[in-house]
Amino acid sequence: MTDLSPESGSVQPLRVNGERLISRLDELGAIGAIEGTIGCARLALTDDDKAGRDLVRTWMDELGLDITVDGIGNVIATMPGFDHGIAPVMTGSHIDTVATGGRYDGNLGVLAGLEVIETVMTARLDLPRPLAVGWFTDEEGARFAPDMLGSLVYVGGLALEEALTITDRDGLSVGGELERIGYLGSAPIPGAVPHAFVELHIEQGPILEDEGIQLGAVEAVQGISWTELTIIGQSCHAGTTPMRLRRDPGVVAARINVFVRELAERFGGAQVATCGVVSHVPNLVNVVPSKVTMTVDLRNTDDATLEAAEAEFHAFVADAAAAEGVTVTARSLARFASVEFDDRVAEMIEAAAAERGHSIRRMCSGAGHDAQMFARICPTAMIFTPSVNGISHNVTEYTEPADIEAGANVLLDVMLRLAASDLS
Amino acid sequence: MTDLSPESGSVQPLRVNGERLISRLDELGAIGAIEGTIGCARLALTDDDKAGRDLVRTWMDELGLDITVDGIGNVIATMPGFDHGIAPVMTGSHIDTVATGGRYDGNLGVLAGLEVIETVMTARLDLPRPLAVGWFTDEEGARFAPDMLGSLVYVGGLALEEALTITDRDGLSVGGELERIGYLGSAPIPGAVPHAFVELHIEQGPILEDEGIQLGAVEAVQGISWTELTIIGQSCHAGTTPMRLRRDPGVVAARINVFVRELAERFGGAQVATCGVVSHVPNLVNVVPSKVTMTVDLRNTDDATLEAAEAEFHAFVADAAAAEGVTVTARSLARFASVEFDDRVAEMIEAAAAERGHSIRRMCSGAGHDAQMFARICPTAMIFTPSVNGISHNVTEYTEPADIEAGANVLLDVMLRLAASDLS
Repeated sequence: MTDLSPESGSVQPLRVNGERLISRLDELGAIGAIEGTIGCARLALTDDDKAGRDLVRTWMDELGLDITVDGIGNVIATMPGFDHGIAPVMTGSHIDTVATGGRYDGNLGVLAGLEVIETVMTARLDLPRPLAVGWFTDEEGARFAPDMLGSLVYVGGLALEEALTITDRDGLSVGGELERIGYLGSAPIPGAVPHAFVELHIEQGPILEDEGIQLGAVEAVQGISWTELTIIGQSCHAGTTPMRLRRDPGVVAARINVFVRELAERFGGAQVATCGVVSHVPNLVNVVPSKVTMTVDLRNTDDATLEAAEAEFHAFVADAAAAEGVTVTARSLARFASVEFDDRVAEMIEAAAAERGHSIRRMCSGAGHDAQMFARICPTAMIFTPSVNGISHNVTEYTEPADIEAGANVLLDVMLRLAASDLS
Repeated sequence: MTDLSPESGSVQPLRVNGERLISRLDELGAIGAIEGTIGCARLALTDDDKAGRDLVRTWMDELGLDITVDGIGNVIATMPGFDHGIAPVMTGSHIDTVATGGRYDGNLGVLAGLEVIETVMTARLDLPRPLAVGWFTDEEGARFAPDMLGSLVYVGGLALEEALTITDRDGLSVGGELERIGYLGSAPIPGAVPHAFVELHIEQGPILEDEGIQLGAVEAVQGISWTELTIIGQSCHAGTTPMRLRRDPGVVAARINVFVRELAERFGGAQVATCGVVSHVPNLVNVVPSKVTMTVDLRNTDDATLEAAEAEFHAFVADAAAAEGVTVTARSLARFASVEFDDRVAEMIEAAAAERGHSIRRMCSGAGHDAQMFARICPTAMIFTPSVNGISHNVTEYTEPADIEAGANVLLDVMLRLAASDLS
């Protein structure tokens, strides 16, 4: 058995093939590419998502991995040659993107996991347990709410039957779309519990770049609260209806948007608030809207503060609706408490980075990730690489090749350590 | 020649056939009907608009009227048997609707005009000049801006070539769509100057109903200012981007919406303000928008006050954009000064209503109408009928049959008086 300990000095530490990894990121990013940019659009379960899935599956096949597809379309590829009873060390992320997304968000975690496994198999390392890499359906939630849908279902957090009936804006269901693109699999849900889970992801924020640090050891994920508001007012003529007679849902939506912005600034710290969706009906220049649909995304690392923000938000909505004489229906699209990762895994990440000579800091994730679902069932943590200008969910999203390679090498080290550790 | 003067006592005053008029309103309203409502959707130059046009044209044909279609798709039907050099007394309005519109707005004016002509022709009255009824393309502006497009072009307020190149949100042009539906005509633009113009229209507001008055003699139309704002910010991840780094065009749009509402309340009087369109891009729950398009509709009967409102609005937009670090492009979609109608025509309307025993008041129109374009070239005024609950641009728009008939009879009387008057 090869010595897995870099500090032994007996062998050069194993390294991933950074060029192959970057090349695969580029090849996958070409599917659904947004012309004139380096960004791409592969919303979950669309034709482009299918094309992306098929490409990554081809690479997994070429490597001879055991591939399973489960009932929510998650695809897990495991190193062959192990007893089925031995829980793998799992990594993974997602390959769906937002409508104007980048080629790193999610994709990096999946392709780096594949790269780690290819590196280990090429080196013919003899491991006590297999490594596995997966991608999880609809992590972005950009087409079907809630986000992190595939990993949520994998860990038993949402019944499969319920998940399959979720529909997009056009009324198309998760189940129907999975079947249409050929990814309605039969592997059991909930899925098998891994020995441990570690996910490599771009930071999607500005902190690492600001501080000039190369990697993050993610020890927690902030809590997420998504609410959809449907505000019904009275459509009428924009010229002939005196202001005193108006019941304008657009004005109420605007007041809510301004309120949650000011709430986040007032709370300070880790509190963020966003109204990403605002849709007027009928959306015509000379018609007071009859209906406005909007979403409010609140996040905080501190659950009690997040709850306080939610309470203020809902109280404001009620007051604003009453003052205007409109009705509001609130629907929770997603609600995840903040998540603490496993300190032992986070320490392994810090140690591996230090041994490779990379600067690293403990940090908290502002975004939700598949790893937070796995934290419910096995020891879990995450590795972050910097995002240039802190930008993500945008076609200009970019991470330097050197940072990608550093993150993948640390992922390699940590997966090997986890395979050798009983984590008892 | 029949005595046209109701007060002569020698004949019963002529009356329109109210049942036939209501029945035609219903038949036209069935085209583009919105299921489960009495409303309809016939956006300008769509297939449904074509079907509506074809139906009304059939009725005009059956009556033997001389029909012309001009280069912007306006259709004018004139009583036959007169020298071409004799200017007609014209009435008319529009048959396009907003996306969730009613069956009275515009349609009443066209079909009541047809009813007046049919009544006069059936009675074989010998008139000194012909009566004519027209409908004017895209009065609503719900598909192509500016509104009142057809009548604006008819009176020479906008070059035909320019009007034909105006596009809708899908990039389809007025010219292309006119050709597609078979209404790109050859009658000259600008059109012939009528002897006078009078338009019957629903009030689309609550004043007549509130005051229990049956008809309005419209003496003016308030000024209209439509602005489209395109606000460009920085799309980014809703979870990972600290509030201090945000450049959110949605928040700026919301501040503008709240500001113009408060501006209209502060100005009071006839000032109204509406943000009908607010469109976020990419409009996803977890993405700070990159771009927001919105419209601001400001109206006032007093031009100086409207200009003051516009100035405050533009100053606020500049400040809000600078504070958030976004860029804003403003484009004027329509700008019409307030319009004074011809006092002699308004007096004829008052007199005719009084003689028929209908209560009437002088009033100002909050909405724009085709008649205001004709006011540029000939003596013009309007007759209003009440709108139940003041509602219009809404599927529940309704006007009582008795009010429709009263309005049509006054239109009849006024058109006959105008035909007999030299208005010198």
